[in-house]
Amino acid sequence: MGAWLEGKSLADKIKENVQAEVEKYRQSCGAVPGLAGVLVGDNPSSQIYLRTKERTCQALGIWSQILRLPADTPAESLKVKIEELNAGDHIDGILVQVPLPAHLNAHQVVSWVRPEKDVDGIHPYNLGLLLENQPGPRTCTPAGIVALIKSTGASIEGRDVVVIGRSMIVGKPLAAMLTNENGTVTICHSKTKDLAGTAARADILIAAMGKPAFVGPDFVKPGAIVIDVGTNSVSDAALIRQLYGNDPKREKDLREKGYTVVGDVQPAVVEKASFQSPVPGGIGPLTIAMLMRNTLEAFKRGRGFQL
Amino acid sequence: MGAWLEGKSLADKIKENVQAEVEKYRQSCGAVPGLAGVLVGDNPSSQIYLRTKERTCQALGIWSQILRLPADTPAESLKVKIEELNAGDHIDGILVQVPLPAHLNAHQVVSWVRPEKDVDGIHPYNLGLLLENQPGPRTCTPAGIVALIKSTGASIEGRDVVVIGRSMIVGKPLAAMLTNENGTVTICHSKTKDLAGTAARADILIAAMGKPAFVGPDFVKPGAIVIDVGTNSVSDAALIRQLYGNDPKREKDLREKGYTVVGDVQPAVVEKASFQSPVPGGIGPLTIAMLMRNTLEAFKRGRGFQL
Repeated sequence: MGAWLEGKSLADKIKENVQAEVEKYRQSCGAVPGLAGVLVGDNPSSQIYLRTKERTCQALGIWSQILRLPADTPAESLKVKIEELNAGDHIDGILVQVPLPAHLNAHQVVSWVRPEKDVDGIHPYNLGLLLENQPGPRTCTPAGIVALIKSTGASIEGRDVVVIGRSMIVGKPLAAMLTNENGTVTICHSKTKDLAGTAARADILIAAMGKPAFVGPDFVKPGAIVIDVGTNSVSDAALIRQLYGNDPKREKDLREKGYTVVGDVQPAVVEKASFQSPVPGGIGPLTIAMLMRNTLEAFKRGRGFQL
Repeated sequence: MGAWLEGKSLADKIKENVQAEVEKYRQSCGAVPGLAGVLVGDNPSSQIYLRTKERTCQALGIWSQILRLPADTPAESLKVKIEELNAGDHIDGILVQVPLPAHLNAHQVVSWVRPEKDVDGIHPYNLGLLLENQPGPRTCTPAGIVALIKSTGASIEGRDVVVIGRSMIVGKPLAAMLTNENGTVTICHSKTKDLAGTAARADILIAAMGKPAFVGPDFVKPGAIVIDVGTNSVSDAALIRQLYGNDPKREKDLREKGYTVVGDVQPAVVEKASFQSPVPGGIGPLTIAMLMRNTLEAFKRGRGFQL
């Protein structure tokens, strides 16, 4: 029987360190890092995410601003706005909240952000630095995953690592980071033939494909570390009961919101794993902590301070 | 018993296509692609490589120039020279020949090249585009490897692929390309624990670690496609005889040059594989063909022609 690997205490520690450093710079040079969020349209989830980021900035002493633009903002106008933020001396980090309205191309929009201000670590230039194992802002969720794995005391070097999913915000940058950490990394996806068999060879397994409770014990090598990056809204009460038994929190979710958030990994996997990160409460808190750290680091790089 | 998978005829076909297109543009708009090579110092191998590239350009109708700079050129002066080439309208591609003298950082020098002119496909921005599977110039040798694999008629999608080696000119960009081709890719390296066992699971195995004849039949799944990217100079006559038997060409090399070029894969592997690329004569000819293709594509992108 393995342990649940929650992300909150590690995230809190990272945020405390950021806060302490921000305070140090505030006192020593009278400046603090600044983060600008860009929201195009009024997607309700995006608004919640951005407000959480804003509140976290406030708690850590980081200056923040949210630029709200109408859903029909033309690409050219958005570009002008991003260039204004690029030019803003008090803005160290710029994040463009996704999803964007259909007429905007996220890859193109992100490439307008100056790489030094890309605190999400998703600009092509920064992805290239990651592949090269050169210093630069690292994609937040993968950076959180690496930190969470290391927090168990386990070594990544020489271990067989399997990443399921090849998105640009998790799978692909994560595979690059874990290769840089000297893991032997396999990246699986929808076209992989023997997914369970491949996953079951992993000392460290990361599920990031976005399929609720897809990864069962047959995917897992005994004693493996299993990181669950899925966040799937599930409304099927029978499925929830089958997966979690009688779970008052999830029953309440279903009653009040009509859904509960389920990872890509079945909770029963923890019996076979050494560690399993829960959903919610696993990777989630780390993503925002890494965003804060990236913002602080962008501030330090921009001013020539030692990282 | 598998077949030897030579690169020459595919490379010739690629070059013929480039030549025909160059001629078409020369006639239709009076312009041809231009490639500038930068050589710092007088490394003899580098001079040979650059002269081969120059001759290939001439054969295909591509304008070319080699900028020769003294070995002690300061970084700042090199940067100025590269910026002049960046600004040159008649120059579509810039390649900086490596290795550079020790006082110059290759990663930094390459990042001075405008991404659109980086026909080697090794600028961080272009590596990021590759990771994202977005259009852009692709690293030459990996692009040649993918083309050579496809030339066998084999599908990459859904196949287990193992890449041994994680250099920035072969292993890492190649792993990204093969993931983009829907292969299930594992990238192995010096810290991998069970290298032979991992390699032996591959339907497609690429050896790019730079260790002469390291990969033996025990690394190979019966019927696998084996691509050998090693180019190692070996002087040990007994080893050469053991690997190749009585090979007049290699005996002559040893006698006249004191070494012969050996891949990372033992020639005996071909008996177990479906295909094995030889060294020399496998991947080598494709690298330069892909450089020519990248130069043509940079010319077309720069002028807004359909790729």
